[in-house]
Amino acid sequence: MRAIAVHRGEELPRVIDVPTPEPEPGEVLVETLRVGVDGTDHEVIKGTHGGFPPGDDYQILGHEAIGVVVDPTTTGFDVGDLVMPTVRRPPNGTNEYFERGEPDMAPDGQYVERGIVDAHGYMSEYFTSPAEFLVEIPESLAPHGFLVEPMSNAEKALEHAYATRSAFTWEPESALVLGNGPLGLLTLARLARDVDDLYCLGRRDRPDPSIDIIEKLGATYVDSRETPVPEIPAEHGHVDIAVEATGYAKHAFEVLDALAPNGVGALLGVPGDWSFEIEGGRLHREMVLQNKALVGSVNSHIPHFEDAIETVSSLPDWFVDDIVTEVVPAEDPSAAFERNTDQIKTAVEFVSPSER
Amino acid sequence: MRAIAVHRGEELPRVIDVPTPEPEPGEVLVETLRVGVDGTDHEVIKGTHGGFPPGDDYQILGHEAIGVVVDPTTTGFDVGDLVMPTVRRPPNGTNEYFERGEPDMAPDGQYVERGIVDAHGYMSEYFTSPAEFLVEIPESLAPHGFLVEPMSNAEKALEHAYATRSAFTWEPESALVLGNGPLGLLTLARLARDVDDLYCLGRRDRPDPSIDIIEKLGATYVDSRETPVPEIPAEHGHVDIAVEATGYAKHAFEVLDALAPNGVGALLGVPGDWSFEIEGGRLHREMVLQNKALVGSVNSHIPHFEDAIETVSSLPDWFVDDIVTEVVPAEDPSAAFERNTDQIKTAVEFVSPSER
Repeated sequence: MRAIAVHRGEELPRVIDVPTPEPEPGEVLVETLRVGVDGTDHEVIKGTHGGFPPGDDYQILGHEAIGVVVDPTTTGFDVGDLVMPTVRRPPNGTNEYFERGEPDMAPDGQYVERGIVDAHGYMSEYFTSPAEFLVEIPESLAPHGFLVEPMSNAEKALEHAYATRSAFTWEPESALVLGNGPLGLLTLARLARDVDDLYCLGRRDRPDPSIDIIEKLGATYVDSRETPVPEIPAEHGHVDIAVEATGYAKHAFEVLDALAPNGVGALLGVPGDWSFEIEGGRLHREMVLQNKALVGSVNSHIPHFEDAIETVSSLPDWFVDDIVTEVVPAEDPSAAFERNTDQIKTAVEFVSPSER
Repeated sequence: MRAIAVHRGEELPRVIDVPTPEPEPGEVLVETLRVGVDGTDHEVIKGTHGGFPPGDDYQILGHEAIGVVVDPTTTGFDVGDLVMPTVRRPPNGTNEYFERGEPDMAPDGQYVERGIVDAHGYMSEYFTSPAEFLVEIPESLAPHGFLVEPMSNAEKALEHAYATRSAFTWEPESALVLGNGPLGLLTLARLARDVDDLYCLGRRDRPDPSIDIIEKLGATYVDSRETPVPEIPAEHGHVDIAVEATGYAKHAFEVLDALAPNGVGALLGVPGDWSFEIEGGRLHREMVLQNKALVGSVNSHIPHFEDAIETVSSLPDWFVDDIVTEVVPAEDPSAAFERNTDQIKTAVEFVSPSER
């Protein structure tokens, strides 16, 4: 079957031919419809995040897949069910995190991630998955259900951020998303449900499709070249919640200055090594005297997928149309991996959702 | 009446004579038994934290008071009730934080703190307080009930730290307290209820009374001169929860290295300005990939006092005897403000609890 993989020493993914997987009892064989591409895929392609499956010199990409059950084996799924797989799998047998349904909280070494860390992904005509790692997706989401996986990461980050503020009365009225990539815009759309006063930071010139989306969501675009994060309060006021979705290392600390008292910063982006100076005494003191919190969040699991299904289902049509800028055929997927300012979210299509 | 105050331009507090306060209806007149001294008092004396009441060139110290109701006016208290006042008061009228019983979450400008920020404290023969800011203390705590206020700060910090981890299954098994001063030791004693594997960081040579307390609590003393915070995991393993109680600015960031995956650092100490370099990219990345959290916490209110009453009531007698190293008479209180390694927690006595 056709698969899209990155090879050691190569800069761009390419189409390869691999054997069609055969499901074991308890597993489901899924025919892939579409697979979204995100920043993590670009990090995997560059070799800065995750790792190839042991013994292989290539990795099949893809962790945002939507597909149709073709062989449910012994599971409760039916042929034709629309499903999405979660990303993490136990590396050997199982462990406590998987047993209690919280693989997203497993530490390094206690998970692999399909398409990211030490395991092949879903960017192929078929994939198999144990039934417990599949989420059923409503038919209406067949075309853009691949947005559920990245949205589930935003759901988890916000759940954890809100949890940090659960010991007191906290009703956030303003929010800032750092980053106008796909994850940033999805997070912004999710936050629009909770708060009216929304900001999204980027560093793009107008006209730009991500800025258009930000403004159609009723949010204010903040150009970080004109208004660096620590200056946001002077320009726009402090925010109750901020979500870092760029992986820019300094944001984790700068964001403390953007937060209102009792605010929380959620960190989703994954930066590389970088040492720099901070006003550590002042930031530390203000975290204490203003009861501020900072929380890192990675990955997501079934409950976050379920929340994300609800959120993605409620997204306005214009948002989905505008954020998904290109769906390319699996036979020639290179355009899905191009990075230019016209692209926001791309996906690779194996089977057209309208022709299944 | 006799009061103990710090004066502008003077390095040490001294005894002064001020009018005995007269309670308004709804207020309670309290005769002071004992008032604890802590690190915040030393910061107030040095002038590095808080501020004098507007218009005064002196500030009556003290925010850890225990006393006896002598005039309950129109309140529900009775003459003879043992009470402790909370610390924060509304600056003008009231505001939303006080109205909903969460003055500890009020931002700068929306509170004063008796004995700390813009208001006189309780280190005087009598003080008044609105009834709503008084907590009744069991008779058994008359001698050392002044420990309830600092313990209530630990209770709040731990409540907020645990809240950050409430979105998933989290059972902390190890804890590290940074700081072997009174607040650090009280926090350590509180944590001993929750976890078995306990560490406390200090920089003292043996023999030292705080190290003795650490070890009698079953905790391991970590000398920061031999084992700096980032090296604690190599020496002792990672910890699930860490509480910063020194105000050393770098700890807020170093503590991230000491935390196990899914761990939380609670910040209680108040550092001054200091800029320094950190491995910000790595720390930010690890917060994300390991789901770590950092939370600042200041002050406390009635529910935390109530938790603290329970905790202080359950402290072993040896702990109370060992941590309260000196109780000095209000007529000559200078020894309560001396800082030497033999002193841990001191208090000033106005009326002996046994002679009331």
